[in-house]
Amino acid sequence: MSDFGLLSPVTASPAVAALTGDRAVLAAILDVEAAWAAVLEDAGLAPEGAAAVVAQAADPELYDAEAIAERSQGGGNPVIPLLGDLRARVRELDPAALAAVHSSLTSQDVLDSALMLLADRVRAAVLTEIKGTTTALAALAEQHADTLCVGRSLTQHALPYTFGLKAAQWFQGVAAAARHLDSLELPLQFGGAGGTLASATVLTAGTASGPFELAEALAAKLGLAAAPAPWHTNRLPMTSLGGALAALTDSFGKIAADVVFLSRPEVAELGEPLAAGRGVSSAMPQKQNPVLSVLVRSAALQAPALAGQLHLAAATFNDERPDGAWHSEWPALRSLLALALGAAVQLRELIEGLRVFPDVMRRNLELSGPLLLSEGVAAVVVPLLASETTGADGKQELQAVVDAVLQTNQPDQAATYAKLLREAVPAALLPDARLAELLDPANYLGEAADITRRILVAYPDYAATTRAATTMKGATRA
Amino acid sequence: MSDFGLLSPVTASPAVAALTGDRAVLAAILDVEAAWAAVLEDAGLAPEGAAAVVAQAADPELYDAEAIAERSQGGGNPVIPLLGDLRARVRELDPAALAAVHSSLTSQDVLDSALMLLADRVRAAVLTEIKGTTTALAALAEQHADTLCVGRSLTQHALPYTFGLKAAQWFQGVAAAARHLDSLELPLQFGGAGGTLASATVLTAGTASGPFELAEALAAKLGLAAAPAPWHTNRLPMTSLGGALAALTDSFGKIAADVVFLSRPEVAELGEPLAAGRGVSSAMPQKQNPVLSVLVRSAALQAPALAGQLHLAAATFNDERPDGAWHSEWPALRSLLALALGAAVQLRELIEGLRVFPDVMRRNLELSGPLLLSEGVAAVVVPLLASETTGADGKQELQAVVDAVLQTNQPDQAATYAKLLREAVPAALLPDARLAELLDPANYLGEAADITRRILVAYPDYAATTRAATTMKGATRA
Amino acid sequence: MSDFGLLSPVTASPAVAALTGDRAVLAAILDVEAAWAAVLEDAGLAPEGAAAVVAQAADPELYDAEAIAERSQGGGNPVIPLLGDLRARVRELDPAALAAVHSSLTSQDVLDSALMLLADRVRAAVLTEIKGTTTALAALAEQHADTLCVGRSLTQHALPYTFGLKAAQWFQGVAAAARHLDSLELPLQFGGAGGTLASATVLTAGTASGPFELAEALAAKLGLAAAPAPWHTNRLPMTSLGGALAALTDSFGKIAADVVFLSRPEVAELGEPLAAGRGVSSAMPQKQNPVLSVLVRSAALQAPALAGQLHLAAATFNDERPDGAWHSEWPALRSLLALALGAAVQLRELIEGLRVFPDVMRRNLELSGPLLLSEGVAAVVVPLLASETTGADGKQELQAVVDAVLQTNQPDQAATYAKLLREAVPAALLPDARLAELLDPANYLGEAADITRRILVAYPDYAATTRAATTMKGATRA
Amino acid sequence: MSDFGLLSPVTASPAVAALTGDRAVLAAILDVEAAWAAVLEDAGLAPEGAAAVVAQAADPELYDAEAIAERSQGGGNPVIPLLGDLRARVRELDPAALAAVHSSLTSQDVLDSALMLLADRVRAAVLTEIKGTTTALAALAEQHADTLCVGRSLTQHALPYTFGLKAAQWFQGVAAAARHLDSLELPLQFGGAGGTLASATVLTAGTASGPFELAEALAAKLGLAAAPAPWHTNRLPMTSLGGALAALTDSFGKIAADVVFLSRPEVAELGEPLAAGRGVSSAMPQKQNPVLSVLVRSAALQAPALAGQLHLAAATFNDERPDGAWHSEWPALRSLLALALGAAVQLRELIEGLRVFPDVMRRNLELSGPLLLSEGVAAVVVPLLASETTGADGKQELQAVVDAVLQTNQPDQAATYAKLLREAVPAALLPDARLAELLDPANYLGEAADITRRILVAYPDYAATTRAATTMKGATRA
Repeated sequence: MSDFGLLSPVTASPAVAALTGDRAVLAAILDVEAAWAAVLEDAGLAPEGAAAVVAQAADPELYDAEAIAERSQGGGNPVIPLLGDLRARVRELDPAALAAVHSSLTSQDVLDSALMLLADRVRAAVLTEIKGTTTALAALAEQHADTLCVGRSLTQHALPYTFGLKAAQWFQGVAAAARHLDSLELPLQFGGAGGTLASATVLTAGTASGPFELAEALAAKLGLAAAPAPWHTNRLPMTSLGGALAALTDSFGKIAADVVFLSRPEVAELGEPLAAGRGVSSAMPQKQNPVLSVLVRSAALQAPALAGQLHLAAATFNDERPDGAWHSEWPALRSLLALALGAAVQLRELIEGLRVFPDVMRRNLELSGPLLLSEGVAAVVVPLLASETTGADGKQELQAVVDAVLQTNQPDQAATYAKLLREAVPAALLPDARLAELLDPANYLGEAADITRRILVAYPDYAATTRAATTMKGATRA
Repeated sequence: MSDFGLLSPVTASPAVAALTGDRAVLAAILDVEAAWAAVLEDAGLAPEGAAAVVAQAADPELYDAEAIAERSQGGGNPVIPLLGDLRARVRELDPAALAAVHSSLTSQDVLDSALMLLADRVRAAVLTEIKGTTTALAALAEQHADTLCVGRSLTQHALPYTFGLKAAQWFQGVAAAARHLDSLELPLQFGGAGGTLASATVLTAGTASGPFELAEALAAKLGLAAAPAPWHTNRLPMTSLGGALAALTDSFGKIAADVVFLSRPEVAELGEPLAAGRGVSSAMPQKQNPVLSVLVRSAALQAPALAGQLHLAAATFNDERPDGAWHSEWPALRSLLALALGAAVQLRELIEGLRVFPDVMRRNLELSGPLLLSEGVAAVVVPLLASETTGADGKQELQAVVDAVLQTNQPDQAATYAKLLREAVPAALLPDARLAELLDPANYLGEAADITRRILVAYPDYAATTRAATTMKGATRA
Repeated sequence: MSDFGLLSPVTASPAVAALTGDRAVLAAILDVEAAWAAVLEDAGLAPEGAAAVVAQAADPELYDAEAIAERSQGGGNPVIPLLGDLRARVRELDPAALAAVHSSLTSQDVLDSALMLLADRVRAAVLTEIKGTTTALAALAEQHADTLCVGRSLTQHALPYTFGLKAAQWFQGVAAAARHLDSLELPLQFGGAGGTLASATVLTAGTASGPFELAEALAAKLGLAAAPAPWHTNRLPMTSLGGALAALTDSFGKIAADVVFLSRPEVAELGEPLAAGRGVSSAMPQKQNPVLSVLVRSAALQAPALAGQLHLAAATFNDERPDGAWHSEWPALRSLLALALGAAVQLRELIEGLRVFPDVMRRNLELSGPLLLSEGVAAVVVPLLASETTGADGKQELQAVVDAVLQTNQPDQAATYAKLLREAVPAALLPDARLAELLDPANYLGEAADITRRILVAYPDYAATTRAATTMKGATRA
Repeated sequence: MSDFGLLSPVTASPAVAALTGDRAVLAAILDVEAAWAAVLEDAGLAPEGAAAVVAQAADPELYDAEAIAERSQGGGNPVIPLLGDLRARVRELDPAALAAVHSSLTSQDVLDSALMLLADRVRAAVLTEIKGTTTALAALAEQHADTLCVGRSLTQHALPYTFGLKAAQWFQGVAAAARHLDSLELPLQFGGAGGTLASATVLTAGTASGPFELAEALAAKLGLAAAPAPWHTNRLPMTSLGGALAALTDSFGKIAADVVFLSRPEVAELGEPLAAGRGVSSAMPQKQNPVLSVLVRSAALQAPALAGQLHLAAATFNDERPDGAWHSEWPALRSLLALALGAAVQLRELIEGLRVFPDVMRRNLELSGPLLLSEGVAAVVVPLLASETTGADGKQELQAVVDAVLQTNQPDQAATYAKLLREAVPAALLPDARLAELLDPANYLGEAADITRRILVAYPDYAATTRAATTMKGATRA
C-alpha cells in the first residue's frame, strides 16, 4: 500500500525498512532461490555454473518490488511473478541455468522459507539492540541498588523498593523474552507442491542425494533449521515466532508503561533522554514529550492482536494449503517483526539515556510516609498489641492507629505514626531504637538486593556487567 | 516500512495504494491545512491571498513521504515534520502567508481530521465497487430465482434452496453493511492543543466568527461533519468506522467462504471468472485457483482483529491525549481501509464474472435425495402415522422409515423412501399425486422467492434491477 | 464451566448473574418458545389453551441448566435438549399443546432470538446504570465548571483545563456510546431450518397469516424488531451489538484510565468513594486501592477482543448455517453483555461517589507554572518580539525565554518567566496588567465552559441537570 | 456469571468443569495456602500441628464459591474473601494455627501460583486425551499408508496424496504442540506484597531458611517450578502458557477444518463416529451433523484472541502490580484451559471413531484425473517436447495439451490426456509402458511414506505404534 511508515512512527526508520520492507522480502525470496540453485548444482542436478548465474540474477536491485506486488494479485503470492522475472533474467544470462531455478519447489516452500530467513535476520538485529538495552539495565540495577523508591500496586504505594530492583525486573522481562526468541529454531520449509516431495523425488531419482539430503543442504546454506518433515500445514513455527516477538514487545511495553508514568511532572522520578528534536510538540514550546516510551508503548499495544492473528491462521489452515489463512499470516508476521525491531531501537535509546532522579524517588516514597511500613510494623507490633488479658486483637489495634494517622495531614503523618505507636506499645517491649529502625524504609527492603543479583546472574549473556553483579550483594552490604 | 503490498496481495493494487498509501495520507493532511488557511482568510484572520499561497504549497508532490515518515519519530507524528516543510515552502512563496498555516490547530486536530478525510475518500471508492457487486448479485438473485440447489447447515444438506436466494442473502449482507458504512458521520476534529480551543479563542477574539463557526466552515470545506464538541479523547468515530469497515469485510468473507467451497472440484456449483493470469500456480499447470475468493477471505480474516485494535485504543485513551493509544490507531485504521477497498475490488471482479452451474447444483441437491424433504414430509405424514388406536408415535414411525432409507445405497434412496412412505401411509389418507408432490424439492422452497424479493426491495440503492425484482414474485409464480 | 465469577470480579454480582447467567439464557429461550406458542394459538395454528400450557411449562425454574448444558454437546446447542425437556413437560400437562411447541422453528431461530432478547434485557439494565452515571457526570461538569486543573497530553502538562470539562468529556464518551447502543434494533431471527421458511409455509398454508405475519407477531410479543428477511447468515446485528457494547466499555475504560492516574498518591486530584470493604489489601493495612476503576479497566481491556471475535464469526459464516463460527459467537456475546453490565454498575458507584480535590488540581497545575501558558503567550508575544530591524524571529526569541525558564528551579519558574518576558517586551507594547493577565491560567481556558455546555445539551436524555446546563455559560461568566 | 456452559457446548462437560470451574480454582487457592502452611511448619515458622489444621480447613467443599466470587468485588480478587473464611475456620479449629495462614504472602503470590497449579492439572488431563488422539492418528497413518487420496491446495486438486500422510501431518501438528505444552515450566510466584520478599525476610530472620529456600520448598510441594526471582510483573509464564494452549487448539482446528470438509456429502471421504444423540438436529430427522468437528472448530476460533488477551495484559503490566491488566488475565487463561481440555476430549472421540472411506477418496482423486500428474509428467515430458530445431518451448507445448484436455468433458479427460501426450511425444522417447506409469497416481507419491515415518519417529511418546512405524517404509515398498 505504499507505506513508508508515515502512520507508524515506531517503525519508520531506514534501519527497520531495510530489514523488514518489501525489498528485504524480495531479497530473502531471491536468496532462497539462489541457495537452492547452489544446492542443485552441488548435487549434480543442475549444470555447472548454473548457481553462479542464478546468484547473479538474484540481485534484488534488479527487480521492481512495486510492480511485483501488483502482479502478485494474479496468483495470490509474490513468488510467482518474481519467479517469472528471475527466469527471464537467467534466460538472458544463460538459458541452461534455468534448470537450477525453482526446480521441484513450490511457492510455499520459497515464501515460508524466505519469511523464516527474514525473521532470522531481523532477530539478529533485534537481539543486538536488546543487548544494548539489557546492558544498560544491568548497569542501572547495580548503580541504583541502594536508591530507595516506592513499590506500587494497584496504583497505590505498597512498600519501599529500590530503583535497582525495578531496573532488574525490567531486565528480567526483556532478557527472558529475548532468550526465548533466540532459542527458537526457524525451520526451512521444503515439501513441494502438495507436501509429498513428489517432484524432488523424480528429480533426484538415481542420484546420490534424496530430497531430505537436499533439504538439509539448503537449510545449512540459509542458516535455517532442517525440519523432520514439511510443516506446510502445521504452523507452530509461525505462531511460536509470533508469540516470541509479542512476548518481547510485552516486556518493552511493561517498561514503557512504567516510564510514561514515572516521567510525568507530578512524579518526575525519571526523564527520557534529552535530544534535539525528540519530544517536540507542534503547538506547545514548553513540552518535552516522552516520545520514545510513547512509541514503544504504541508497538506493545499492537503486537498482541498480531500474535493472535497468526494463531487464527494456524487454526484455520485447511487442506494441504489453505484458502486464505496462509495469506493472512504474511502481513501479521511482517508487522510483528517491524514493531519488535522498531521498538527495540527506541527502547535502547530510552534506556541508555534514561535520566534517574533519586531525590524525587525519595520524596515520593515519603509521601506515604511511614504507613508504607505497616506490613513490617505489623509483623512486630501486632503480637505486642494483642493481649489475652484485655482480649485485644493486635491487628485491629494497629488498624486503629493506621486509621488515626490517615486522618492527619500528610506532612504530619510520620510523626503521628511514631507517636501513636510509641503510646500503644510499651518501650519495654519495643525500645525506641528498634521502633525507629522499624520506621526507616531502608530497613524494609527484604531481599531486593539479592533478587536483583539472582536476576542478573540468571541471564549472563544479557548483562555485560555480570561479574560486578555477582559481587554486588556483598558490596551493598558492606 | 517500505511496504508496496508484496505480502498483502489483496491490497496490492495501484488503485488501493493511491487512496490509502502514505502519499494519500500526506495529501489528506495537506488538504486539511489548506482548507484551514482558506477558512482563516475567509474570516479575516489571515492576509488576503494567504490561502492561495498555502494551497499552492500544499501540493503533495512537493513532499518526500519517506523522509517525513522517518522524521516523524522525533515528535511521534507525521504532522510535525510535514508542517515544518510546509512552512518552509510557504515562507519561500510569501512569508505573510505563514499566518494562515496551522494557526490554533494542534497535530491531533490535523491528523484525526485527515484520517477522516482519507476514510471518506476510501469510502466513496468502496461504495462504488460495492454497487457493482450488489447490482451483479441482484441480477443473480433474479436470474436464479428458480435454480434449485441445496441449503446446507453444519456442512450437511438441510433443505432445498435456490441459488437466487443464496445470491440475495449475499446481497443483503453486503448491502446492509454498505448502507451502515455510508450512513456514518465522519466528523472534523477541532479542539486545539488540549481540547479547550484556547488558541482559537485568542485568535478570534474581537472578530465576527468564534471557534465553533470556524470549525463549521472547516468541516464544510472538507466535506466532514461538524462535531458538537472536540472528540479528541472519545474515539467512537474511530471505532464506529472500524466496526463498519470490518462489518463490510465480514459480508465479503461470508461470500468468499461460500465460493471457495462451492467452486471446489467435488462440489463445482460455481466457478471463479476465468481470466488470463488469474489463479495460476507456480508448480501445477492444470490448477485454476479461486484466487479472488482466497484473497477476499484473507482480508476478512484480518479485519476483525483490526476492529478490535481500534476499540483497544479507545479503551485506553487516557488524559487529554494519550501516551500510546492514539498512535496505535493509525496503522489499524489504514489497514482496515486498504483491506476493505482491496477486497471490494476483488469481490466485484469475482461476482461480476461468477460462473454458475445449475446442473451441478441440481446434481448435488439430489445427493441427499428425498431425505432433504423429511421436514416437509414430516409435517404432513407424522399426523397420519400417529394412531391413538395402536399408540403409534408418528414421529418415531417416520424416523424408522428415514433410518431404513439411510441404510440403502444412495442412488436407491429416492425410490426406497417413496416406497416405504407409500407402504406406511394408506393412499386414502395421502393420494399418490400428493405424495409425489411432497417428494419434489421444487415444492419445498417455502418463501424463497418472497424472501429474495423482500431483500432486494429493502436496499433499492444497491439493486439497480429492483424494478424487476418487485415484480419477480408474480413472475416466478406465473 | 461452573463459573460464578471467581476469576472475574467485575461481573461477579448477583445482579449481573441474574441477567446474563445461564439461567437467564434458559429463560430467554423459554420465553421465545412460549411467545411462539401464543402466536400459533392466536393464528389458529395451535389448539386453544395450548399457549397457556406452554407458558406454564416454560418456567425456567423447572429446568436444570447444568444438565442441559452437558446434554447440549450432543447436537451442539442448548435448544435441542431444553426442547426435549419442554416437550416432555408439555406432554405431561396436555399432549395436545405439543403442536404449539417449536413448530416450524429451528434451533437457530430460537437461539438467535433468545440472545437478542437477553441483550435487550441487559441493555435496559445497562442504560439505567448509565443514566445514574451520566447524571452524576453532568452534575460534576457543572459544579466544577470553574475548577482549574491541568490538561495533559502525552503525559505532559499541556494547557490549563477545568475539571468540569473533563467530566463533560467523560459524559460525552458515555452518553454517545449509550445513545448508540440504545438506538440499535435487535431483530427477531425467523427463517426455519434452512432459511426458506419452508416449514412455516406448509404450516400456514390456507390460513390468513403467512410466515411473515407470524414473524411480526412474534417480534412484537418479544419486543424485538421484525427483520425484512432472515439474517441467519448475515451477522450484522451481532457485530453491531458487539461493537456497541465494546464502545460502551471503551468509554468506561477512558474514565477508569484517568481515575487510576488521578487518584495516585503523587497526583491525588481524585479519590474513589470510601466504603467499607472497598479497596482492601490482603497484606497492607494502609492501602486504599481504587478497586472500582481497576475492575472497570479490566473490563475495558477485555471487550475489544470480544468485539473482534464476533466479527470473526461473521466473516467465516459459511453455508446456510456454519460449521463452528455460529458457536463461537455465543460466549463472546455473553461475556460482552456481562462485562458491560458489571462495569456499568462499578462505574456508577465510582462516579456517584467520586471525591474531587480542587486544591490539589490547582497545585498540580502550578507545577508547570506559567510555562503552560506559552501557547497563549506566544500568540501575543511572538509578533511583538519579531523585528524586521534586527531580523529577530519572534518564535525563536520566545523559545529562548522558555529554555531559560526551564533551566531554573521549578518554584522560581513563574517569577523568572514573568521577569524575562518583561525584559524582552517593552511595556509600551505589553502593559504590566496585560502581561499579568496573560500569565493567569484562568484566562487561558478558551471555550472550556462552552464546550461543556454544548456537550450536555447534545445529550439531554443523559443529563438530568440539562436545564441548568443550558444556562450555565451565562452563569459562569456572570 | 453463573455459567455452566449452556453457551459453550465444547466445554460443557462435568470433566471440564471439574478441572477448570470455580470450584477447581478455589481448590487450587486452598492447596497453595495449605502447602504454604506445611512449609512454614517444616521450617519451624509455625507451631507444630498448624499445617494439619490448615489442611483440614482447606477443604474446598467447606466454602461457597458463589458468595466468595461476589465478595471478591471488594478487594478485586477472590483470595481476600476466601482467606477471610479460611482464617475464620482455622480460628475455630485452633487459633494457634493462624500463624501458618498466608503469612508473608500476598494475594498475587497465591493467585498466580494457584492458576499455575490449575494449569498443571488441566495440562495433565489434556495430555492424556491427546495421547489417545495421537495414538489413533498414528494408527491411521500406518493403516492408510497406501490409501490414495488427493492433496488439495487453495481448494483445488494439487497432487496425489495418501490419507496416511494426512493423518501423519495431523499427528505432527498435535504432537508438536503437545510436546511444547508439556515442556513448559510452570513457576511458583513468590514475592510478597511488593515483590521484595520483605515480609518473608522479617519472618525468616534468624532461622535456617531464607525466603528463597521457603520458595523452593513450596514449589516442590506444589509440583511447580521454582523461579529464580519473582515474576509478578513479567508475564512470560502466562503468555507462554496461553500461546502453548492456543497452539494446541490451532492443531485441533486444522484437523477439524479438514474433517468438516471431508465429511460433507459432496466429498464423503470421512465420517464422524456414529453415536446415539450425536449430531442430531432439532428440525431435520435425516441430518447427521459433524458435531464433534464443529465444536472443536468453535474452540479453535476462540483461542487466538484469548492468547492475544494474555499478551495485552503482559504489555500493559505497570508498576509492581498493575491497575487492571492482571485482572484481565484470569478469565482469558481459564477460558483457554477449558477450551483446550473440552476440545481435546471431543477431538479424541472424533479421531478414535473416525470413519474413513478409501473408495471415495479414490473416486475424488479421479475427478481431476490425470491432470493431477501434470507436474510429474512435465518433469519428464517438457524436455522431450522442447526442440531446438523447431524452437518449441516444451512447457508451452505441454500447457497446450493440458488446455485441450480441460476443454473436454471430465469423464473423458484421462483418455484424452493419454492420447494427446502419446501424439505429442514419439514412443521412441517415451515408451507406452513409461507413459502409463507416468499417468498412475500411485507412482507420484514422492516421499509420502517416508515423511509419514519421519513424523512418527520424531514423536515417539505420542505414537504408541511407533515400532511398527519405523519399519513401515520397507513394508510399504515390499
